[in-house]
Amino acid sequence: MTDTIVNAIKWTDNTLLLLDQRVLPEQEVFLSFKTASKVAEAIQTMVVRGAPAIGITAAYGIALAALDQHGSPVASLKPAFAVLAASRPTAVNLFWALQRMQERLDSKAIVDANALLAEALLIHSEDLAANMAMGEAGAGLIQETGGGCVLTHCNTGSLATGGFGTALGVIRTAFKQGLIDLVYADETRPWLQGSRLTAWELAKDHIPVMLIADSAAAYVLKTKPVRWVIVGADRITANGDVANKIGTYSLAVLARYHGVKFMVVAPFSTIDFALQSGQQINVEERSADELKFIQGRRLAPDAVNAFNPVFDVTPGGLIDAIVTERGVVVNPDIQSMSALKTNGKYQSAPA
Amino acid sequence: MTDTIVNAIKWTDNTLLLLDQRVLPEQEVFLSFKTASKVAEAIQTMVVRGAPAIGITAAYGIALAALDQHGSPVASLKPAFAVLAASRPTAVNLFWALQRMQERLDSKAIVDANALLAEALLIHSEDLAANMAMGEAGAGLIQETGGGCVLTHCNTGSLATGGFGTALGVIRTAFKQGLIDLVYADETRPWLQGSRLTAWELAKDHIPVMLIADSAAAYVLKTKPVRWVIVGADRITANGDVANKIGTYSLAVLARYHGVKFMVVAPFSTIDFALQSGQQINVEERSADELKFIQGRRLAPDAVNAFNPVFDVTPGGLIDAIVTERGVVVNPDIQSMSALKTNGKYQSAPA
Repeated sequence: MTDTIVNAIKWTDNTLLLLDQRVLPEQEVFLSFKTASKVAEAIQTMVVRGAPAIGITAAYGIALAALDQHGSPVASLKPAFAVLAASRPTAVNLFWALQRMQERLDSKAIVDANALLAEALLIHSEDLAANMAMGEAGAGLIQETGGGCVLTHCNTGSLATGGFGTALGVIRTAFKQGLIDLVYADETRPWLQGSRLTAWELAKDHIPVMLIADSAAAYVLKTKPVRWVIVGADRITANGDVANKIGTYSLAVLARYHGVKFMVVAPFSTIDFALQSGQQINVEERSADELKFIQGRRLAPDAVNAFNPVFDVTPGGLIDAIVTERGVVVNPDIQSMSALKTNGKYQSAPA
Repeated sequence: MTDTIVNAIKWTDNTLLLLDQRVLPEQEVFLSFKTASKVAEAIQTMVVRGAPAIGITAAYGIALAALDQHGSPVASLKPAFAVLAASRPTAVNLFWALQRMQERLDSKAIVDANALLAEALLIHSEDLAANMAMGEAGAGLIQETGGGCVLTHCNTGSLATGGFGTALGVIRTAFKQGLIDLVYADETRPWLQGSRLTAWELAKDHIPVMLIADSAAAYVLKTKPVRWVIVGADRITANGDVANKIGTYSLAVLARYHGVKFMVVAPFSTIDFALQSGQQINVEERSADELKFIQGRRLAPDAVNAFNPVFDVTPGGLIDAIVTERGVVVNPDIQSMSALKTNGKYQSAPA
């Protein structure tokens, strides 16, 4: 079904296995999990990251709790839902996946571990199918403008999803169609998802990749034949505003300035229609130490403060297309976004 | 004469001492130099960096060679000039300083070490005086718009100059005048001059500093009360285009988009009137390993390429003011820049 070269989330023998993304690319280590609280800790400490992957992982976390509480009153899973919901604030897929698990739980009188595990597995496989559909739709947009080079930020590939990827899924599909000569990958400070994860995935797939410092993106957009900037999303609001990895907003401004198209690729579950605009998004700030240290080595003096917002918000007006498995929204705004809601799956929204 | 808290370039006992900027802030180590070729190596390997500091260091390198060749024919210094000129391609101050030393050499029949050392010391002390003058002029611009927060990139302080600093000199002076609440400092990948050097200098001076990822600058410009982006320059062309640390061009585009003013601070010697525009500048590219490793630790897979331009070029049209010791050029272009040439020292150019 897929060409993905790595499966970072595995369910086997009633155990969740997560590829520890903190030590890639130097080490490829799977950690095993048996409880929801340990899964929440893995999300918090970024063993797993990427909005879709976080949602899938949280669903498996509930499945683990259900196995432990099989046959108990449904209220016995409350602590598991609470600890997982508190693990990361910005990725809406997390809350969406927990909501799906809650609905499946609420349909029963007592905890049915099999039903909840089936739901988690379904969430996982649906995400993979959605990625494949988004890959086709996004590659179609690149086909329209003509190919060349693309630029991407953070990691949105197999490691960030149920497999294949969102923005990186589009890049994979477009590359296979002969539309992409070279991928410029921002290193993506402070976690270096670009250097450590995206470069690693693309190299494994033999897709030509050129790593750049985040601050070199403007120079690349000005001097190289880049046609599209392609990124993922952690949360999309009803008007098409996009919360994503810090630096995404910067790229959107720079792309518009240089006449380069800007594409956001995310599953429909990333859209939070309850939020009218990006101003209502609670942007996560993480520890200053993520900037001041790297792999335990000090970079900045102890006395210095650092401001470490993990996400920023890109207004829909700077985005040329939002690609979901339910269709593509060109020039997103409140009207074009709402049309997606009434779409069936895998159809194109009116441009 | 100055409040500078660190003197990174010292001449003592016919020896050049350079503070090793590669190991700051963890270690404060001075390395000593006795030959021009070792000085060239120090420039190439970034023991010393910052365009004005490189120029001063190169002048002392010639002084060392002159001490060795005192009384010899002037041609005996040719190898010293050649090796120093080849050490870094972009910083015009390097060539300017070597030119001054050459002119001093050419005025004699044989190598006069005392004359050449006097010229190097003069270049050094003139740079310091220029920094103080630029500090006053730049702070005047901030006074006009009203103060608040500023954002800076790379290191342009005592470590990058003969002392005090260019952009950081303006920040020091403006802070003393009560015009600056907080300095946002880009960490400045790949060398992290912001984290390691700028944050260190500002903390020593008790100027409030907040470190940010380079890619967070757009978010900061959008959400924080930043009035000015203030940067240095490695080379300025006749039309006001500015070559400076990679990421400077990105900041200029972002500042213009957000209605934030953009100031470049550099000594007059940084201006290369022989170049008509930034398109003629040879932008240095350094090793991919500067992005793929940090302090010897691998960040990216071996198989991956990296594109590591060290500088970019910002068009004069995106710059609100270029501050030099000979005056301030508002909205730089070919006419306003050429007015600087006819100015005496420390006068204001017509806006």
